Amino acid sequence: MSNETSAPSIAAQLTLRHILIDTDHENVAYMHRDCEVYRAEGFKALSKIEVKANGQRILATLNVVEDEAIVACGELGLSMDAFARMDVADGHPVTVSQAEPPESMGALNRKINGERLGQNDFRAIVRDIAEHHYSKIELTAFVVATNRDELDREEVYFLTQAMVDAGQQLDWQELLVVDKHCIGGIPGNRTSMLLVPIVAAHGILCPKTSSRAITSPAGTADTMEVLAHVELPMAQLLDIVRTHRGCLAWGGTANLSPADDVLISVERPLSLDSQGQMVASILSKKIAAGSTHLVLDIPIGPSAKVRSMPEAQRLRRLFEYVAKRMRLTLDVVITDGRQPIGFGIGPVLEARDVMRVLENDPLAPNDLRQKALRLAGRMIESDPDVRGGDGFPIARDILDSGRALAKMNDIIRAQGSQSFDYKNPALGALSFEIHAPQAGVVCSIDNLQLARIARFAGAPQVPNAGVDLMCKLGDEVVAGTVLYRVHAGFAADLEYARQACQKSCGYVMGRPEDVSHVFVEF
Amino acid sequence: MSNETSAPSIAAQLTLRHILIDTDHENVAYMHRDCEVYRAEGFKALSKIEVKANGQRILATLNVVEDEAIVACGELGLSMDAFARMDVADGHPVTVSQAEPPESMGALNRKINGERLGQNDFRAIVRDIAEHHYSKIELTAFVVATNRDELDREEVYFLTQAMVDAGQQLDWQELLVVDKHCIGGIPGNRTSMLLVPIVAAHGILCPKTSSRAITSPAGTADTMEVLAHVELPMAQLLDIVRTHRGCLAWGGTANLSPADDVLISVERPLSLDSQGQMVASILSKKIAAGSTHLVLDIPIGPSAKVRSMPEAQRLRRLFEYVAKRMRLTLDVVITDGRQPIGFGIGPVLEARDVMRVLENDPLAPNDLRQKALRLAGRMIESDPDVRGGDGFPIARDILDSGRALAKMNDIIRAQGSQSFDYKNPALGALSFEIHAPQAGVVCSIDNLQLARIARFAGAPQVPNAGVDLMCKLGDEVVAGTVLYRVHAGFAADLEYARQACQKSCGYVMGRPEDVSHVFVEF
Repeated sequence: MSNETSAPSIAAQLTLRHILIDTDHENVAYMHRDCEVYRAEGFKALSKIEVKANGQRILATLNVVEDEAIVACGELGLSMDAFARMDVADGHPVTVSQAEPPESMGALNRKINGERLGQNDFRAIVRDIAEHHYSKIELTAFVVATNRDELDREEVYFLTQAMVDAGQQLDWQELLVVDKHCIGGIPGNRTSMLLVPIVAAHGILCPKTSSRAITSPAGTADTMEVLAHVELPMAQLLDIVRTHRGCLAWGGTANLSPADDVLISVERPLSLDSQGQMVASILSKKIAAGSTHLVLDIPIGPSAKVRSMPEAQRLRRLFEYVAKRMRLTLDVVITDGRQPIGFGIGPVLEARDVMRVLENDPLAPNDLRQKALRLAGRMIESDPDVRGGDGFPIARDILDSGRALAKMNDIIRAQGSQSFDYKNPALGALSFEIHAPQAGVVCSIDNLQLARIARFAGAPQVPNAGVDLMCKLGDEVVAGTVLYRVHAGFAADLEYARQACQKSCGYVMGRPEDVSHVFVEF
Repeated sequence: MSNETSAPSIAAQLTLRHILIDTDHENVAYMHRDCEVYRAEGFKALSKIEVKANGQRILATLNVVEDEAIVACGELGLSMDAFARMDVADGHPVTVSQAEPPESMGALNRKINGERLGQNDFRAIVRDIAEHHYSKIELTAFVVATNRDELDREEVYFLTQAMVDAGQQLDWQELLVVDKHCIGGIPGNRTSMLLVPIVAAHGILCPKTSSRAITSPAGTADTMEVLAHVELPMAQLLDIVRTHRGCLAWGGTANLSPADDVLISVERPLSLDSQGQMVASILSKKIAAGSTHLVLDIPIGPSAKVRSMPEAQRLRRLFEYVAKRMRLTLDVVITDGRQPIGFGIGPVLEARDVMRVLENDPLAPNDLRQKALRLAGRMIESDPDVRGGDGFPIARDILDSGRALAKMNDIIRAQGSQSFDYKNPALGALSFEIHAPQAGVVCSIDNLQLARIARFAGAPQVPNAGVDLMCKLGDEVVAGTVLYRVHAGFAADLEYARQACQKSCGYVMGRPEDVSHVFVEF
């Protein structure tokens, strides 16, 4: 039916040049405007091109250059990340051609138009995302179009399964591999760094897959990095887990649910956190890491991610539905999320709190200790030899006896310890304090505002920046009592934090009967 | 309440350097990784920074460079567009600081979360968009979060008003300023290039605000550019309209509804076209251009944007609601959108068809002529001196007498004519034909597939690429009859078009009674 008068297209050859420009996760290619190939292929600035060499293939966004010093005719420049992804030497020949739109664009458009997608649609989309075939625009469109109630629970299951399938999946060859996760939103909530040594000390395999902060002032990986290396080669990590029954490094270095990391790069600037995406993100990472059991912490509070019990129960049911279809044993714990946990907010400050608990230091924050023991108890009860209700005292014994500290030190040494003195941590040198304006009782503490202040102060990029709380809910204060201290490493950061405090300091004072209450299950 | 220990942040000074990298609409800044300012301010790759000099201020995405040949310590590089926007000389001192998030981020997040926004929210969002304060991620989030039914009709009005207010608004000092717009989706539908000369020849002011193709193979501006310059200085355009009562250039050069152009940069790659955004985009441009009356063409057909009469009526009511609140007199015409209009699809091919109609050439496509006359008649009837029903014969007289052609030639000369021989247009040199596989009648022609083929062939970037239709709905063919010919300028484009034709040629043959029908109002 077709009567051609031309030869089919032949991909054009250029010489690869490493351009020392850091464009983060985005692949950027540079081509000179006068380059024959640029003209012949009819490329445009910001169009997507396909680059191939040596069996490798990437898609990149094209920037058109008019300066031979940056890239010359006949050369194809690649930004640092793109160059690393190509994995061939500078000067290697590469072929370039116009990139066809990602295969899954049709499915993406149907989702944008509000349609329900099937399992194969999610597979195609997630594969394209994991292989970096989506532009930021396409990624954002996917994330916003699957926000809120746009995904039904079966679609969340399809998305979760697709995210697991797109990466590597670990198999520990054990019947019981336990993990814990908190849906987040509570500053200072560093229970993982206590649970892992306690549970591993009990003998259960606990390869904690931890992540860096997305919108919070510190993730477990950021905080653990104060004490030890967290970005380790896969082989070393597997070895540590097998030897010590646990570790506190992970995530980025392993290729577990790789689409999740890509999606986070657009979710972060939008502060997005939809239920469906949260469930898929959390469960896909845990399942890919080989967990058989998961204890999930859902905090409730007026400034937590989840603000009411009905909302928590809805989220719990979504988690339970997807976990069941993925054959993961899930234990959901709904906890008190009215205020930050512990005293410190920010990597160094939180590492200090964790070490105080492990060292049984009298200055240890009791709320962090109690919460960690309760969650560790639930994890220990996944051991069929432990009777219901015995988990908590077992966990407490392990902590009080110093066995948890010893295990933590083993793990720190195995990962490669960083020098850190928990009794005298080097906090950000610039600081200011916020004082109580009048006498009263601390009635509410705004998690979001405290997290915001800590972020403005520089956390987690500046590890020793953040907020150190001196008062918690129910504490009696007089006028002038220090409520908290803000630490920063840079003047600009301190100024942003100060302005944020001026808008709202995050504390409300009142009478003892005004202290906010919340129903929690334990 | 605050007890500072540091000085407030001082924006750091650097020397501006023009980096000859074309990043299209995106402002990109380049800073060396070892630059004092980069380290002191705690910037990161892809973080947004604010650049100020000489009263100008832009936001830019930061790329971190490790090559002194591109940008040295102490310098701030700006990509070509960003440099032009700053409007100061190379080597000028500039100050840089971390950009605070756009003011309207709160409103954007509420919209993403499904809330209804108020007038001030839309004002803040649209102002930030028009001033290029949004990243591609934020723009995409807005476009997807206001897609489909996410905007109610009052929100569409707020958005429209905000889009008008964010730019310049023309005032022609006349009671009657008439424009016409088609919602699009029908290839070859170049009626504007006929209406403007007809209506202007009648004496009504018709400053047609035309645009370039977004997702189609040609916009009016792309096609007019074959005949005349379309990117003209504002002063010259105003002069042409006052002298000749009409023009066919516009859009980009005037600052009319500038947010629309920015939004299009993300709508295009997603092929998005939501009703609310369409209404706001169209009406804001027309009102900013000073129109008092608008004839709006909504084509219906199985492969048109609007596929049924109820859908067309719903869209019509939304247009009418917003137009009324904006005090624009609106006349909606629902037309036959079952197939492309005219023969050619692509700028040069469509320019040929338009000139054939104006020249009263026997090869002129009759459907294009008839549709243009009907719409011109409706526009002419906005003249209070014209009786209902007289518009069509007046328009026909103007066209048949050659007055429309004379007016078009005046406009072409005034805009600056390009050499073009409509009898022998230089079409893309590479071509292939699609033939009827068996005898029958053309029962349906897929607008979307024909547009897709023309785009793959290179239209509109390659003006003489596209599709030339030899058969239309109802035509009888024998096996081997040429249905259409595809023209391209580049081998790669031709190959893409050929592959698209192999998937589906866009034509369906059958019996005479199978020809698709559609109810239209005229």
